[in-house]
Amino acid sequence: MRTDKRQADELRHAVIEPGINKHAEGSVLIQFGDTKVICTASVEERVPPFMKGQGKGWITAEYSMLPRATHSRNQREAARGKLSGRTMEIQRLIGRALRSVVDLQALGERTITLDCDVIQADGGTRTTSITGAFVALAFAIHKLSQNITFAKYPITDFLASVSVGVIGGKTLLDLNYEEDSKAKVDMNVVMTGQGKFVEVQGTGEEAPFSRDELNQLLALAEGGISRLIELQRQTLGAAAERIGG
Amino acid sequence: MRTDKRQADELRHAVIEPGINKHAEGSVLIQFGDTKVICTASVEERVPPFMKGQGKGWITAEYSMLPRATHSRNQREAARGKLSGRTMEIQRLIGRALRSVVDLQALGERTITLDCDVIQADGGTRTTSITGAFVALAFAIHKLSQNITFAKYPITDFLASVSVGVIGGKTLLDLNYEEDSKAKVDMNVVMTGQGKFVEVQGTGEEAPFSRDELNQLLALAEGGISRLIELQRQTLGAAAERIGG
Amino acid sequence: MRTDKRQADELRHAVIEPGINKHAEGSVLIQFGDTKVICTASVEERVPPFMKGQGKGWITAEYSMLPRATHSRNQREAARGKLSGRTMEIQRLIGRALRSVVDLQALGERTITLDCDVIQADGGTRTTSITGAFVALAFAIHKLSQNITFAKYPITDFLASVSVGVIGGKTLLDLNYEEDSKAKVDMNVVMTGQGKFVEVQGTGEEAPFSRDELNQLLALAEGGISRLIELQRQTLGAAAERIGG
Amino acid sequence: MRTDKRQADELRHAVIEPGINKHAEGSVLIQFGDTKVICTASVEERVPPFMKGQGKGWITAEYSMLPRATHSRNQREAARGKLSGRTMEIQRLIGRALRSVVDLQALGERTITLDCDVIQADGGTRTTSITGAFVALAFAIHKLSQNITFAKYPITDFLASVSVGVIGGKTLLDLNYEEDSKAKVDMNVVMTGQGKFVEVQGTGEEAPFSRDELNQLLALAEGGISRLIELQRQTLGAAAERIGG
Amino acid sequence: MRTDKRQADELRHAVIEPGINKHAEGSVLIQFGDTKVICTASVEERVPPFMKGQGKGWITAEYSMLPRATHSRNQREAARGKLSGRTMEIQRLIGRALRSVVDLQALGERTITLDCDVIQADGGTRTTSITGAFVALAFAIHKLSQNITFAKYPITDFLASVSVGVIGGKTLLDLNYEEDSKAKVDMNVVMTGQGKFVEVQGTGEEAPFSRDELNQLLALAEGGISRLIELQRQTLGAAAERIGG
Amino acid sequence: MRTDKRQADELRHAVIEPGINKHAEGSVLIQFGDTKVICTASVEERVPPFMKGQGKGWITAEYSMLPRATHSRNQREAARGKLSGRTMEIQRLIGRALRSVVDLQALGERTITLDCDVIQADGGTRTTSITGAFVALAFAIHKLSQNITFAKYPITDFLASVSVGVIGGKTLLDLNYEEDSKAKVDMNVVMTGQGKFVEVQGTGEEAPFSRDELNQLLALAEGGISRLIELQRQTLGAAAERIGG
Repeated sequence: MRTDKRQADELRHAVIEPGINKHAEGSVLIQFGDTKVICTASVEERVPPFMKGQGKGWITAEYSMLPRATHSRNQREAARGKLSGRTMEIQRLIGRALRSVVDLQALGERTITLDCDVIQADGGTRTTSITGAFVALAFAIHKLSQNITFAKYPITDFLASVSVGVIGGKTLLDLNYEEDSKAKVDMNVVMTGQGKFVEVQGTGEEAPFSRDELNQLLALAEGGISRLIELQRQTLGAAAERIGG
Repeated sequence: MRTDKRQADELRHAVIEPGINKHAEGSVLIQFGDTKVICTASVEERVPPFMKGQGKGWITAEYSMLPRATHSRNQREAARGKLSGRTMEIQRLIGRALRSVVDLQALGERTITLDCDVIQADGGTRTTSITGAFVALAFAIHKLSQNITFAKYPITDFLASVSVGVIGGKTLLDLNYEEDSKAKVDMNVVMTGQGKFVEVQGTGEEAPFSRDELNQLLALAEGGISRLIELQRQTLGAAAERIGG
Repeated sequence: MRTDKRQADELRHAVIEPGINKHAEGSVLIQFGDTKVICTASVEERVPPFMKGQGKGWITAEYSMLPRATHSRNQREAARGKLSGRTMEIQRLIGRALRSVVDLQALGERTITLDCDVIQADGGTRTTSITGAFVALAFAIHKLSQNITFAKYPITDFLASVSVGVIGGKTLLDLNYEEDSKAKVDMNVVMTGQGKFVEVQGTGEEAPFSRDELNQLLALAEGGISRLIELQRQTLGAAAERIGG
Repeated sequence: MRTDKRQADELRHAVIEPGINKHAEGSVLIQFGDTKVICTASVEERVPPFMKGQGKGWITAEYSMLPRATHSRNQREAARGKLSGRTMEIQRLIGRALRSVVDLQALGERTITLDCDVIQADGGTRTTSITGAFVALAFAIHKLSQNITFAKYPITDFLASVSVGVIGGKTLLDLNYEEDSKAKVDMNVVMTGQGKFVEVQGTGEEAPFSRDELNQLLALAEGGISRLIELQRQTLGAAAERIGG
Repeated sequence: MRTDKRQADELRHAVIEPGINKHAEGSVLIQFGDTKVICTASVEERVPPFMKGQGKGWITAEYSMLPRATHSRNQREAARGKLSGRTMEIQRLIGRALRSVVDLQALGERTITLDCDVIQADGGTRTTSITGAFVALAFAIHKLSQNITFAKYPITDFLASVSVGVIGGKTLLDLNYEEDSKAKVDMNVVMTGQGKFVEVQGTGEEAPFSRDELNQLLALAEGGISRLIELQRQTLGAAAERIGG
Repeated sequence: MRTDKRQADELRHAVIEPGINKHAEGSVLIQFGDTKVICTASVEERVPPFMKGQGKGWITAEYSMLPRATHSRNQREAARGKLSGRTMEIQRLIGRALRSVVDLQALGERTITLDCDVIQADGGTRTTSITGAFVALAFAIHKLSQNITFAKYPITDFLASVSVGVIGGKTLLDLNYEEDSKAKVDMNVVMTGQGKFVEVQGTGEEAPFSRDELNQLLALAEGGISRLIELQRQTLGAAAERIGG
């Protein structure tokens, strides 16, 4: 029995509240249990220097935690003067994952920046960020589509993410912080609405894992992600209609 | 008539929601109209190097805006690798103001850090931060007082802050962003529950101001701050009882 | 009686020596008692990116202290790799104050940078810097006016600054370092030749202050500043003639 | 047929030259085709602050490329003043992977730093670094074991790494740079001598991948890694004897 | 007798291995005894901003040591976030020395960057770097000359460098690390093929030196450098033919 | 004839004004023609970490130019966030030169920091800094000697510095800025009161120089330095008595 009484293949209570920022083109507050992340999508009509003149757009992401998002207070990265390796790794992952379901050609020469700010952390902040950022992005592109005629709709599929892990020899879905710190194996999986893998990142720093365990973990993730995509679809409503179309 | 139909001496709708962070010793979400700030108080049982061995505590503050708190997205200070002058100025102001109503000797050798993170900005973020941070601080010290017997209660008075300004020759209370950008004179005032001044920062970059205008601005601020302190008192409930006692 | 035997409303001996740098378009060494600041004005025929194409000029300031300007040596900000919050706050203040008496439209698309380098500090370095920088600026614009025909003279008024404070219940003008470190209330005031306020920055970190004390402090500042403006006028000589004209 | 005429499941020519640095406790020059990495292991008799007093050791890694390791010259990270996200991600991966086969308790309170400097790059620099760093680490611990009696030998298993990917619908082992830049799916796999997974990092930014493709990629990696571990064993000679013992 | 049995005027065994990097336009691995430096020349068809529009080229150099090039491991400058004064001084010296034998007008608007990366250090890394970088540069310009017709060949003379010093009252050529750390006087000399001085940098931090000692040191350096230039000539082969022509 | 009508072997008018900073243990304003440098010596009763526990002292130097010390304004290094290579090179030189005439053992466990701040530049700022810093140092040690009984006086000799160069085939002493920018060869020489060399740094970036020219340059420097040491001796008065004693 898990400490919060969930089944091994049960997600935490997930809520996605849209429209929580009056300035952003798309925004949500996403909660996975006690993990809460504000995701905003900001559209700018220009691309970074390395993308100029290709007629293509760009999707990028930034990730940060408020200093007291965690049990004890962390120093701000702005005060330390640099991003930690963990932050860079996470924001590279979020951006890469989102780009996998966006047709940059169809988007045209504009940049959408997804800011994922963790207000409160209880495990799974990177997977929650990806899942929420996709919804913010979809709202922003839907809004764009009301002013711009996209020959092809730029979002090619849904995208969500969840963590899985091995604790005490058992494979579990959607680890909270307490579980995460006890896990021997920790895996983050990002999948599309079509059930394909975009990212599989499994780490067995504490104990290597077998092919069998890997297979069980992927199956658990697959189940969780399909439920999250259903939640995304409900949240988006009309904004989901042209996705993948 | 102001764009949002307020009277010259009318505050925006102000709400202080306590307990919004499960980790922090004190926390509030404070709203002044569309300006929303998360304020958390984090207690640590140590003081910074320059305070060591004096038997006194320390109160400090940090301030930040989420990148899309504003109309167009700002670059993160963590990504730029340094704090802007504006941020430094604001967080120095918040810390200084709060220390004016804390007896550091009574607090004992511990540090309380107030993090003020602006989730959405519409003018007055620094005064909103001070007003909210005081409440988070008061909750944190109240919580401390349940485990520690303070010979003297460390909070000596209430503290709140508001902005005032001159627009089109008229003095106005609690400027929103649109008003702030049109104001010829802009003043931030911090006062105590006893009606004394802690900070008066008036700037007439666009047009210098007379002694008369200054007097009118201070009167407006005085009125607004006394109403904000009433709101603080209601929000704190039992946590307000020993303040100044 | 003050330690240096001054009356409560007496300025320290103030000297402004012009032309102390052969390269700068305007320069002074200003002394307020033992506080000595080199102020240079540098004219460049371009504006910063955010001002481009508006047909307007820009005035900005930088402030620094030599490492041994103070009683014990401070680490250089260049060696630490960043400006302190105090430095940023001061240089933002100097720039803002000077801009309040310059018509940027009349100045045309050029930048004047005021460098205020404190050679020796004994309290009041920011107010001394503002008072000296105004003179350096006025010399630089006077020099410009010998080559350029300004339809309207860009300097609209005189500008000077002084500190005031409360020590032992008494309000005093122009605090030296020893007084400043004992003051319960500390206020910096910047005023124009017309006797209007440009900046009022009062801080009661040690003890809040009443409306009455505020009024006394402003009166003291007013008296001191009018004498400083007289000194500026004498120093500038012919270079003062078109100011405000 | 691959451009360098290899079979789909064929490694590039791999060479590990030991003892290439006279100062380091362990060192190799490892080559995977045209990718060349210098790996040195440096032993220090202290641990980082966060590990102090636990009686345990620490293994960490740093990764860098010489500016002209790549086709066109890259700016040095030292000149830019910060590590890129890619570098941080890679060095975190190398350190984490190596720690999975070291018993830090058995190692005792010392740090071993693995420096992986890419002299010439042609794809697979992170997997080559892991494979080479393991050998440098094993030499260093073998050398330590000649002076220190380890109750338990600190290295618990062999460890090697290889990349796999999908190009034109085919799964291929050990991608060179040209292949890597054309791959739709790119996966780095780290495995132990016992055939267990330590890291699986698959990315389908260009095109998501199916469960089937994932299985084929893992099988290819498994084959390649077992051959690399054989090469490590030969290179280490007597230094391999107590590994996992 | 020197610890490595050399005569006072004897160079360490010097080897220059060309073509060790498949990407760079010119490259060598140069060894002076146990000091080993990789020197690469990278040609770019643009010049830095301060050289634009003059029709001239630019030669610049960067220098770095691998962390374990030395007896105990040094922290990476990229990790510390800045270059040390020593590194800056050395790379400024290398660039300046090389420019003295290049006709920048004849080179045309292109930049050649010489990267000198010390793989293993045993004294004399800066002089070894200059000697090796010259050869890498000469190869790069020779390669350029196969595609571009230089009206005048851009390299005007050979250039090499060696260290000399005073130990125990005796003047010695080409100090190794052990000698260098005992030397009272340390001098680096850079000379051309014509026997003229480009740089003379003598330091007597431990003990000042007389005019006589200076003369002896220069004579030793002259002898060593002429032998190094002979080695450069042999290494360059056909690529040496047009130098100074 | 030189532009300022000096003979080839003539120094610019040199003035050393002592006691120009009321806080510093030793201070001078030194002028070589239009080059003006404030040199202060700050004594601290501790040594840097790398010197701890050796019973020895430390001498270090920092160098900076005010932004408008030069013809056109330079950006502050504090604003850029790092020291330039030129600054680092100069401050390393000043520190090294001064240490050559200080017996660190005799000094005892204390640090003296020499700050050289260039108020106005017209060539030769580094040699002027060394010459002035020696005087500030000598005053500081003289002051120390009034409270501490030095078994051996820590200053072992006088020390001064001058620049020399080759312009239009002629060797000249003490170059001003205009001459410096035309010089083909530029050399800085530091010598002791005993006429020995501490630093010889000659650079022929524009044109290599012969042994003959080198000899003429050294002779010129020797003459100039002996006159500067005479000026130092007069400035120091009683503070010079125990030097070298």
